[in-house]
Amino acid sequence: MTSVTDTTAALLAAADELDAADPLAAFVDEFEPAAGVAAYLDGNSLGRPVRGTAERISRFVAGEWGTGLIRSWDEGWMQRPFDVGDRIGRVALGAAAGQTVVADSTTVLLYKLVAAALRGVPAGGRILIERGNFPTDRFIVDALATAQGLSVDWLDPDPIVGVMPADVAAALTDRTALVVLSHVDYRSGALADMAAITALVRDTDAMMLWDVCHSAGVVPMRLDEWGVDLAVGCSYKYLNGGPGAPAFAYVRAELQHRIEQPIQGWMGAADVFAMGPAYRPAAGMRRLLSGTPPIVGMLPMQGMLDLLDRAGVDAVREKSRSLTTLAIRAYDEVLAERGVELLTHRDAARRGSHVLLGHPSFRAVTEQLWLDGVIPDFRGPQGIRIGLSPLSTTHAETVRGIAAIAAILRD
Amino acid sequence: MTSVTDTTAALLAAADELDAADPLAAFVDEFEPAAGVAAYLDGNSLGRPVRGTAERISRFVAGEWGTGLIRSWDEGWMQRPFDVGDRIGRVALGAAAGQTVVADSTTVLLYKLVAAALRGVPAGGRILIERGNFPTDRFIVDALATAQGLSVDWLDPDPIVGVMPADVAAALTDRTALVVLSHVDYRSGALADMAAITALVRDTDAMMLWDVCHSAGVVPMRLDEWGVDLAVGCSYKYLNGGPGAPAFAYVRAELQHRIEQPIQGWMGAADVFAMGPAYRPAAGMRRLLSGTPPIVGMLPMQGMLDLLDRAGVDAVREKSRSLTTLAIRAYDEVLAERGVELLTHRDAARRGSHVLLGHPSFRAVTEQLWLDGVIPDFRGPQGIRIGLSPLSTTHAETVRGIAAIAAILRD
Repeated sequence: MTSVTDTTAALLAAADELDAADPLAAFVDEFEPAAGVAAYLDGNSLGRPVRGTAERISRFVAGEWGTGLIRSWDEGWMQRPFDVGDRIGRVALGAAAGQTVVADSTTVLLYKLVAAALRGVPAGGRILIERGNFPTDRFIVDALATAQGLSVDWLDPDPIVGVMPADVAAALTDRTALVVLSHVDYRSGALADMAAITALVRDTDAMMLWDVCHSAGVVPMRLDEWGVDLAVGCSYKYLNGGPGAPAFAYVRAELQHRIEQPIQGWMGAADVFAMGPAYRPAAGMRRLLSGTPPIVGMLPMQGMLDLLDRAGVDAVREKSRSLTTLAIRAYDEVLAERGVELLTHRDAARRGSHVLLGHPSFRAVTEQLWLDGVIPDFRGPQGIRIGLSPLSTTHAETVRGIAAIAAILRD
Repeated sequence: MTSVTDTTAALLAAADELDAADPLAAFVDEFEPAAGVAAYLDGNSLGRPVRGTAERISRFVAGEWGTGLIRSWDEGWMQRPFDVGDRIGRVALGAAAGQTVVADSTTVLLYKLVAAALRGVPAGGRILIERGNFPTDRFIVDALATAQGLSVDWLDPDPIVGVMPADVAAALTDRTALVVLSHVDYRSGALADMAAITALVRDTDAMMLWDVCHSAGVVPMRLDEWGVDLAVGCSYKYLNGGPGAPAFAYVRAELQHRIEQPIQGWMGAADVFAMGPAYRPAAGMRRLLSGTPPIVGMLPMQGMLDLLDRAGVDAVREKSRSLTTLAIRAYDEVLAERGVELLTHRDAARRGSHVLLGHPSFRAVTEQLWLDGVIPDFRGPQGIRIGLSPLSTTHAETVRGIAAIAAILRD
């Protein structure tokens, strides 16, 4: 077998060639530098700050907040959740204006949308979800189903393949009221066929809710065109909104008048400042709001929306495929022989923008990697996720990261 | 009658004397300057940014976020909601550590706490609330009561006086499961006797939930000593957290093990990263969390917590009383004769830190005031709230604001 050093050198040379030909290469300089970080491979968990984020916030503190003061609610803030939502819709979701709002956390928005979708569903109704879905999605569905006397049907696909249209077709019943799936699996990265699955669900009376946390900003989607009913997603992953940045929700325009969510606060009321005796939901997406919108929390993501708008999410997807393909090639050449398992699909069309690797030693390996400035994340029991955020990640960085794993396993 | 100009000059002289003797006067320079603002009288709605807020965020973007990256979750962020919560508890609430958490919005936290308090309450149970409580509080209670077949008892006190212990004593029944009241009324500023009312409720089987949005940081309270069960509050008013900053919740230590809130997400689970099949609530305040904590959103309030810690909330309350007393004196001298009503209690011990004035022309007057850089807020149908945040507001500013109202009414 070729020496590790030779193999790594060849991989790095290939990476350099890919970076040289990368039409998006210049975007890497649009992010804050990270001293001592040799490879950041966790943009799927926490995107890096876009350069200028601090200046954007400084201007806001001195201007809109510090000088505009309460007047800024009238001069933009009341509409900010919808303005930023519309931008996310246009740049990342394939959603026309008026259907996306920024608010709360993914968990809270999921709760609102699932509760709204289940409203009035009689006992005996069923919800279809994947057993491997992100815990929050399962917990929310489980709790709301139990409270309402509904049943949950659990899909159990091969985790690398993910949920296929045929799985959904076989599991849909005439009692199914709601289907909750992730576009990209948070562990394996399996990419579901949103168009085909949504079409199947739309042929029934069920509603289709997509969790797009791991795809928004990196995998193109066409929520409008595909007839998706509901979607929820996160802004701190590929939308680089910063730790705990607010989430977003999409509700198809024609459905909005019958969506009534349970967390009824003043900001979702028809006349916010009427302070009237009874809650009446606002028209349109405002009814998804509850409390005062997180205006400060919406600032950092706006820099990334600018970049995504310039780059175009189709080009971002192209680079994502190139990065994950190179990661898998590097896996084949330096990790497979060390007993590491590839837990992500080999077909780029079937995965999102991260690659899951498995090895019994990976908890300890991750600790060492972090100390060395190579930063993937660990997902128990024994997975390392290599998350590749295309605008901020180079091919060379990807190879350096995988080579660092190989070096630790060798030592 | 003395001329307006003479009266105003005398009021301004008195204000200058009070400012010269104010032991907290130097704190005014600790806030961002606001160009063109002659008087900011809405610190009860949106506190001004503390000087250094932008720098704090810049350091965070470059450091904890930009360089620490995902590692910062292990190195502080996972504990941040509890660390900042504990500071709020110590500085503003009279709460020992381990009982306060920062999360979500006030609305969402109210929903969680009310739902938790009503969990298992059988049909026929009752909830006691004030009809004049903030809309969110009423909407949340109403919706959850309806969903569970419970009844709501509405207190209807004189709005200037607010809810008195005797009102509560008379309205409590042996079916009352929960009492939800505001410490300071969002319109009139009426200050409830939290100690006495809580004591009454504690003599029954009901739980006591206080909304401290309009008192946290400006009216001292002793949640622990007074035996309060639950409290929720806002950080963008007197805690200067910025527009839409996350809220906080308090749950008395002995109750925490039986508080189960309905928005069950991964961050509230016993083992956050186990990603197990079923939700099991974490011990302690973590079970109040749902989604990923808003780390960026928690930054600005920390500057104000530093200032409050230095000043002490008792001294802040003293200055607050002085400011509202002067505002009422100015009202008496320049506004009463112009048909303006005083809608706040004249006894400083019976009000919080804002003063409500009423006049049929106040919607138009507020528009003019804002253009002139005098910024109170308008609350329909005809109220102007003069909100006086003691550390950032001078006596002179207070008089300037009231004189500006008089000048517009005169013209």
